[in-house]
Amino acid sequence: MDVSSEARGRRGRRGGRGEAEPAPAQRPQPRLPFAPVPAVSEDELEAIHAASLTVLEEIGMDFLHAGARQILREAGAEVSPDSERVRFPRELVEKQIGLAPRQFTLHARNPARNVTIGGDAVAFCSVASAPNVADREGGRRPGNRADYQNLIRLGHSLDAVHVWGGYPVEPADIHPSVRHLDALFDLLTLSDKPIHAYSLGRQRNLDAIELTRIARGVDDATLEVEPSLFTIVNSSSPLRLDAPMLEGVIQMAKRNQVTVLTPFTLAGAMAPVTIAGAVAQQNAEALAGLVLAQTVRPGSPFVYGGFTSNVDMKSGAPAFGTPEYMKACLLGGQLARRYGLPYRSSNANAANTLDAQAAYESVFSLWGAIMGGVNLLMHGAGWMEGGLHASFEKMVLDADLLGMVAEFLRPVGVTPEDLALDAMREVGPGGHFFGCAHTQARYRNAFFAPMISDWRNYETWREAGSPTAYDTANRLYRAKLDRYEAPPIDPSTLEELEAFVARRKAEGGVPTDF
Amino acid sequence: MDVSSEARGRRGRRGGRGEAEPAPAQRPQPRLPFAPVPAVSEDELEAIHAASLTVLEEIGMDFLHAGARQILREAGAEVSPDSERVRFPRELVEKQIGLAPRQFTLHARNPARNVTIGGDAVAFCSVASAPNVADREGGRRPGNRADYQNLIRLGHSLDAVHVWGGYPVEPADIHPSVRHLDALFDLLTLSDKPIHAYSLGRQRNLDAIELTRIARGVDDATLEVEPSLFTIVNSSSPLRLDAPMLEGVIQMAKRNQVTVLTPFTLAGAMAPVTIAGAVAQQNAEALAGLVLAQTVRPGSPFVYGGFTSNVDMKSGAPAFGTPEYMKACLLGGQLARRYGLPYRSSNANAANTLDAQAAYESVFSLWGAIMGGVNLLMHGAGWMEGGLHASFEKMVLDADLLGMVAEFLRPVGVTPEDLALDAMREVGPGGHFFGCAHTQARYRNAFFAPMISDWRNYETWREAGSPTAYDTANRLYRAKLDRYEAPPIDPSTLEELEAFVARRKAEGGVPTDF
Repeated sequence: MDVSSEARGRRGRRGGRGEAEPAPAQRPQPRLPFAPVPAVSEDELEAIHAASLTVLEEIGMDFLHAGARQILREAGAEVSPDSERVRFPRELVEKQIGLAPRQFTLHARNPARNVTIGGDAVAFCSVASAPNVADREGGRRPGNRADYQNLIRLGHSLDAVHVWGGYPVEPADIHPSVRHLDALFDLLTLSDKPIHAYSLGRQRNLDAIELTRIARGVDDATLEVEPSLFTIVNSSSPLRLDAPMLEGVIQMAKRNQVTVLTPFTLAGAMAPVTIAGAVAQQNAEALAGLVLAQTVRPGSPFVYGGFTSNVDMKSGAPAFGTPEYMKACLLGGQLARRYGLPYRSSNANAANTLDAQAAYESVFSLWGAIMGGVNLLMHGAGWMEGGLHASFEKMVLDADLLGMVAEFLRPVGVTPEDLALDAMREVGPGGHFFGCAHTQARYRNAFFAPMISDWRNYETWREAGSPTAYDTANRLYRAKLDRYEAPPIDPSTLEELEAFVARRKAEGGVPTDF
Repeated sequence: MDVSSEARGRRGRRGGRGEAEPAPAQRPQPRLPFAPVPAVSEDELEAIHAASLTVLEEIGMDFLHAGARQILREAGAEVSPDSERVRFPRELVEKQIGLAPRQFTLHARNPARNVTIGGDAVAFCSVASAPNVADREGGRRPGNRADYQNLIRLGHSLDAVHVWGGYPVEPADIHPSVRHLDALFDLLTLSDKPIHAYSLGRQRNLDAIELTRIARGVDDATLEVEPSLFTIVNSSSPLRLDAPMLEGVIQMAKRNQVTVLTPFTLAGAMAPVTIAGAVAQQNAEALAGLVLAQTVRPGSPFVYGGFTSNVDMKSGAPAFGTPEYMKACLLGGQLARRYGLPYRSSNANAANTLDAQAAYESVFSLWGAIMGGVNLLMHGAGWMEGGLHASFEKMVLDADLLGMVAEFLRPVGVTPEDLALDAMREVGPGGHFFGCAHTQARYRNAFFAPMISDWRNYETWREAGSPTAYDTANRLYRAKLDRYEAPPIDPSTLEELEAFVARRKAEGGVPTDF
């Protein structure tokens, strides 16, 4: 638990079983080498856009925050004084489109880990916000700070993970009044990748912004031109945004930090049962958030979030990585591009254990997200069970999947050397390429080397105990934790972070009534 | 084993535990609703095409079949009398491009199960050619006729499987001299889907064509205008085609049946270590086969096969479903389209058991194949371990994956009813869509209902014994076999098939020297 000592560089935290080693250099962000795949025609896309504008103009949304309603009223929205309903004239929405940047840099405390959000760049986030955590030995258990810290250590060690998408698991054993202080301190010291902060009230947003500013060692003015944290704002679908979320949009936009507005539109439950209908509603809710953010501060960074999936109509249980999810991924990307906004999607699945289902739902999710042109992939590594638990093993396995996706996105080289005519001349019909000069010069790095895929022949694999991918992921996550080393931090920065947390704790953090 | 009795309609084969039921109606073939995704630019594509022509013109290929060499010599290829080497002038290759049909119908003995090969249509094949078979209880064992028949029964019961891509497992306990007779008889009577025949010598090709003609109940002339079987022709890469394969091209083309030419170009082993180089070689080998087939019979149906993958450079073991495999899938599709040919790819993986690896490698393969514009997906259901075993459980799980892919490819509806504005008006902010009229009218068929995905909540799932996808697939495959019912067949057709097999067996089949 002594994160500060660890951050100061004392090694051997876990008994010295493993040789500590720094986290690998960040793997470069993948760039999409092809145009994203559209789900519908241009006319159909306009029909969805028009339906969303009709929803916003005619039905409107409930904004459970008087300040937000006031801002929107002044901007031209129709808000009756005795209601939470806000109706958005079409022109009000249309004129906010195009103000937010198509791409921006999200800054990390370690500049080598800055990421580009938007354009053709793809950034992979960790799992976030799971209430439970699991590994094979410990089973599934409620979130706690020890597991929270270990997930950060593990994620920091995985070079395919670019960004912290939130708390990988909720450290529920820290009192909510001070949880954000300890949790953000851990995130900013055990890792040096860019971070997310939850919108759970104004003071928590402000504390997060200040902790990030200190960790980065910059002044307020610099932070304001260098977005350095993002917040996920979920609407309470259908057509409602609650007070803490709206406060988050306002506070983040004011400081030019990033809002990712992600409606939680499960088709058949919180949204229409049709994909077009659910996405039209998603789109309405996302655009409403855009209007607020751009009214507060025109040009503030804003990401279009898609999370539309379907439910199991027999039980009402949410499903992910389904064909409907994939179609919604493509469609969400198409809408985001129509508005010139970076696009957020997720690596999701609804499996209870790390079996074939967990893998196929995850890869189907990645397929939809990537071909849909995702820029910010949430829950990239470690998400299980529809988000109800974070898995140590899945985090490693997902990092391998993300590495494979990144390699898939690396363009095929077609130079004369790549075409290898000389190698074919050398080897000739019936020969073998293992030994030829062309192969010898390249074989070490020719192909992506996965961590987990077991390609041994059947007999050798059986003699090794018939390990499954789950077994291998379990072994690897433990080895990676053993070798974890905290990233360097300037001692004065660490002291300043500690002092801020101590002061805010002494003030009571954000007092709760329990 | 008494397939004939079974085909005549006696039920309860497996002790009557399950209620026999006919196989489901064929699920309609998916159509690609979007343009396939290119791997390289048009200029780069031309560079690969040009490299392939250089390979064929300058290096040439070894054709281990004097008759084939004679045909090509007469067509203008450069063949020296004392060598197996064939060199193809560029013009010879270029003039054969565009003769084969862009799409055609592959006929089944049950016309309701005919499939379109080519254009934007996708056909899913079963696993084929595995030497071993596995299920959980029986473990991995050499191929045999009992398992062979059960895999046919299972595949026949799965509506996502359109075509038999070959023997799902090798029935190795049938003597090779008569194996093709019994095996094709089983395939044509236990199922009524379109079939593949192996090119293992002229007589076996002719027997397969005749059995197929009898099963379809058509005359020779009809068979010749209605392609009714296909053969996979693998080159012995690099740059070599052996005698039985070349004989297969000749016999099938003569009768206007289908050749799928699939070079076995593992990058780093039988092909250059670079993807562009391996695919340039794949392309040269495929074009060489095209030239032969179109010389034998211009306009005969020909499918461009891609199977390029990479090896594990540590062990030389073949790997599938890798990022390199995915890129080769896209690139192969791009080349097939350049030549106006239907495109074959595969649902491949190298896992030893039905774990997360089997699933992620399979879905990555599907991702590459589908986005690459596959028309004929080989090994769609049941392939494991780089093709070394067919799995009963994987066949069911893959059928579920194929069903999901088909649903993903079904266009998103964007009618006013799909856009669901009335439903959003009815439910309003903060409401719920479960009960609204729009949902009630659609919920039964709104979403794809997978066979295997387990979406129960964690507690219920645990109480049920924490089943994995492998467990569920095992249970389902047994239930499906229990309920299997042979498809109807005309008694005189059955007699004719039996008589043909008996006669050819009496003649010694295709005599071997063992």
